[in-house]
Amino acid sequence: MSNTTTETRPTPALLQSSGKAIRLAARSAALTTPTSGVAASYLQANLIILPFQYASDFRQLCARNPVPCPLIAESTRTGCWDEIKSHIPNIDGRSILTGCDIRHDVPKYMVYKDSKLVKSHCVDVEAEWTSDHVAFLIGCSFSFETALAAAGLTPRHTQLQRNVSVYRTTLPLNPAGVFTDATYIVSMRSYKASDITRVRDITRPFLLTHGEPIAWGWDAVARLGIRDIDMPEWGDAPLGASGQPLGQSWGSEDEVPLFWGCGVTPQEAAISAGLKGVVMSHAPGHMLLLDCKDEDIIR
Amino acid sequence: MSNTTTETRPTPALLQSSGKAIRLAARSAALTTPTSGVAASYLQANLIILPFQYASDFRQLCARNPVPCPLIAESTRTGCWDEIKSHIPNIDGRSILTGCDIRHDVPKYMVYKDSKLVKSHCVDVEAEWTSDHVAFLIGCSFSFETALAAAGLTPRHTQLQRNVSVYRTTLPLNPAGVFTDATYIVSMRSYKASDITRVRDITRPFLLTHGEPIAWGWDAVARLGIRDIDMPEWGDAPLGASGQPLGQSWGSEDEVPLFWGCGVTPQEAAISAGLKGVVMSHAPGHMLLLDCKDEDIIR
Repeated sequence: MSNTTTETRPTPALLQSSGKAIRLAARSAALTTPTSGVAASYLQANLIILPFQYASDFRQLCARNPVPCPLIAESTRTGCWDEIKSHIPNIDGRSILTGCDIRHDVPKYMVYKDSKLVKSHCVDVEAEWTSDHVAFLIGCSFSFETALAAAGLTPRHTQLQRNVSVYRTTLPLNPAGVFTDATYIVSMRSYKASDITRVRDITRPFLLTHGEPIAWGWDAVARLGIRDIDMPEWGDAPLGASGQPLGQSWGSEDEVPLFWGCGVTPQEAAISAGLKGVVMSHAPGHMLLLDCKDEDIIR
Repeated sequence: MSNTTTETRPTPALLQSSGKAIRLAARSAALTTPTSGVAASYLQANLIILPFQYASDFRQLCARNPVPCPLIAESTRTGCWDEIKSHIPNIDGRSILTGCDIRHDVPKYMVYKDSKLVKSHCVDVEAEWTSDHVAFLIGCSFSFETALAAAGLTPRHTQLQRNVSVYRTTLPLNPAGVFTDATYIVSMRSYKASDITRVRDITRPFLLTHGEPIAWGWDAVARLGIRDIDMPEWGDAPLGASGQPLGQSWGSEDEVPLFWGCGVTPQEAAISAGLKGVVMSHAPGHMLLLDCKDEDIIR
């Protein structure tokens, strides 16, 4: 979720495009911007690529923490960069991703070596990918934002063409193998207190893309251990209804923060676990586009 | 997990019995004791029976919190007491439960009306069951205790024929629909610090019966918001290696508490949510025996 002011926005053509067209644009480096809003209604996914020795523990981490880490697909064989198997039951049999090259098809990547960032916002990971790597795709909250917009509840950051605010919390994940000390990372959207029930109801069926919020209300900020609502660790600072910093609305019923599990969680879990070898991910906000649509994953 | 001193223990014949034989013994009220250790290696399940209007939210609660609430099966139709559908993928197709009468086959039940306990430790719920009820089966940690014992890591409460200690925590569940304010309930087993890795490794594959611990070590007691290690909210007080209250070992590396997600969690979530109508459950420790075995659910 790099700063909006330093990125060009996708063209109207890309906004109306398909998931596959976006992947091809990313592959040729014609598209290098955040993917919020592109190929509207096509499912977007977070990407994490790990050395094989951590694949089993990571799969368990996702299984034990499906709200922040909804695992929707993984590469079929170690080292396989062009075949991804879906874990989504009701669209199994239909491919969610055809003709993908996972080393190129995300607009921008991050590369970590022995848990240290060694490359930021690179356009491919062809040099880093080895026969020992396994790729995992994790659901992304962009999916339910379309549904919110359709109900007249467009998130403010979308209205303002800003990036969603994302925060660290102190809420622990259920540990799994080497992944022992990770915590939830959450995305935030603010609404009127009187809209909370509707927002929960609309996002609840999107179980594979974080579902309903994990917490809401001003008291949730402290409960989640969020340091400062106006200083998100990722994305842009949140703005209130009249463009002021959201924190100035503190305590107001007219402006209440709601927090969702966020796909940055598994990425941070992988980075903070002190893994050896090369770990790769999408750059924040620069997601992989799939061939299926948001409505395919509603439960 | 009623007090051991007030219950007769199952006979040696029942210890060696099958899941089905135990259900029939419970049905005829010949077996009314806790089921820890009976029909060794057969899977045991927590039971929750809810009015239909809450079934969808409860299914979501389990899907969002699979560690404390691993949903392994549910009744196929509202009001159906003799047909249970498995959610366990690798034993689907094989029945996990044949010829069951969910109103009778648990040794003892609890009944709640409008969220108030109205019947405790009754031997059936025939009078309370209606055409509006849905039954849910949740995995139980007895499954991995067999594996721990086989590795020479028999939990102390088993050695001493006491009930496992179970605690409330302040760790929030991911909310789902009407289930908004529930927290993890955890079971505790103490081991040497040097055994933690083995204990985690042995229990990890039992993903559908709570898997590996969610926290361990003396500092986890405060982190989980446990009030007093020597005063569990359910079950018997834990004893240390030489029979003293476990709390006297505080800080010792020779005696470290490990905490697992516990199937009392969804039961408490259902009771604390202020549900209307009649909710039923097994009495603590008095589980439903299934036809499949612990090894069938290893991942």
